[in-house]
Amino acid sequence: MAAAAAAATAAWAQRLAGVRGLLLDVSGVLYDGGDGGGTAIPGSVEAVARIKRSGLKLRFCTNESQKSRDKFVGLLQRLGFDISVNEVTSPAPAACQILKERGLRPYLLVHDDVLPEFDEMDTSNPNCVVIADSGDGFSYQNVNKAFRVLVSLENPVLISLGKGRYYKESDGLMLDVGPYMKALEYACDIQAEVVGKPAPAFFQAALKEMGVEAHETIMIGDDIVSDVGGAQRCGIRALQVRTGKFRCCFL
Amino acid sequence: MAAAAAAATAAWAQRLAGVRGLLLDVSGVLYDGGDGGGTAIPGSVEAVARIKRSGLKLRFCTNESQKSRDKFVGLLQRLGFDISVNEVTSPAPAACQILKERGLRPYLLVHDDVLPEFDEMDTSNPNCVVIADSGDGFSYQNVNKAFRVLVSLENPVLISLGKGRYYKESDGLMLDVGPYMKALEYACDIQAEVVGKPAPAFFQAALKEMGVEAHETIMIGDDIVSDVGGAQRCGIRALQVRTGKFRCCFL
Repeated sequence: MAAAAAAATAAWAQRLAGVRGLLLDVSGVLYDGGDGGGTAIPGSVEAVARIKRSGLKLRFCTNESQKSRDKFVGLLQRLGFDISVNEVTSPAPAACQILKERGLRPYLLVHDDVLPEFDEMDTSNPNCVVIADSGDGFSYQNVNKAFRVLVSLENPVLISLGKGRYYKESDGLMLDVGPYMKALEYACDIQAEVVGKPAPAFFQAALKEMGVEAHETIMIGDDIVSDVGGAQRCGIRALQVRTGKFRCCFL
Repeated sequence: MAAAAAAATAAWAQRLAGVRGLLLDVSGVLYDGGDGGGTAIPGSVEAVARIKRSGLKLRFCTNESQKSRDKFVGLLQRLGFDISVNEVTSPAPAACQILKERGLRPYLLVHDDVLPEFDEMDTSNPNCVVIADSGDGFSYQNVNKAFRVLVSLENPVLISLGKGRYYKESDGLMLDVGPYMKALEYACDIQAEVVGKPAPAFFQAALKEMGVEAHETIMIGDDIVSDVGGAQRCGIRALQVRTGKFRCCFL
């Protein structure tokens, strides 16, 4: 047994050789959301602290789009995490950049708490739709309003902050933005542009912010498509944790 | 010009030779729904009366699933149409038949007004989801509840009453059941079973009820997929009207 353990340790050491940076998903990896803000997953606060002490570069790479980065980081700090806003890569700022570059005025089908991220955007007479995880904001009337904006456009543009199927909160699984993105795609016979994981541009931005190369980096997440698949397509190694939504696939 | 008109009439007479039955879509063809029940499309009340006087067999072939057949027929009668419940082919009874045959207990994501169609069904401890056009009933919480039922099943069964993208009400376009069916398909990585147009079984049931063959029948509808495509795949000729959602594709 000792020999097997030593061999496993050696194999891990070999796998980790040359690693200089880590990308950490947050929801389902560090904490599970829920009423009252959610709860830290046991061991995760200490794990972040150890990573930081190790000297590895670290970025929090999240598709969280129910909260502004300020609120999101505040919540994590209250749960005990050593994290600051400038360590977080999230899709809303990337979406704003795209809107600015292309002169797009969005109809925002997003959670009220994430609206401040779009403060600088002109939302009059919209010529595109931005969709994010809106929770209860995904009422029939709100989704229908987004549909009417899209169907009135000659070239409908739908920008989706992630395409996750669902995530886990403390009281059970919750539909994420992906199913609603698919609903609008089908209604209008269009293809959304995904900003956030698993879009390659999102991972590349995170690497640039860390100043490390893809082959020197490991992504750690609970979503086989958004985290693992997205990272691997960029040449980043990936580890899937068994917390968050992971187990749910087999229930 | 007279010669051209005569040629056109002759061409039509040839096309209609041998036709013994008509299948008529209702929403967008005979009336547009909306507040207060909706309004008859000009000429449609008289068209139904003329068809009936002509001796052609006739069935109303609708995916309407926001109302029970009783309520639906009552609404059309108030608008002036000569129609009775036993002339209507609609998906809810077909869905009930499937549920009974397969011992399925549905979670019903359907409009309150169509619940009476499922009165005889056992809805305790659901082992499938039935989805229909629910309008405002498509709240996040309701759709998430359907998702949680599906994701908890070893073999998730999703039965969808139609798969229309949208329909027209007097104040504008409204999302139909199809986009929400797609949302649940994506969330659970499953394929829904569609009952209603364009499913071949639905058209075959309507033909049987009329007692005519496919090649003797014409389907008239405003939806290129559900009405025209569905009928044609069953060997039924189809005409697309320019009312209802038709024009909207080009706006």
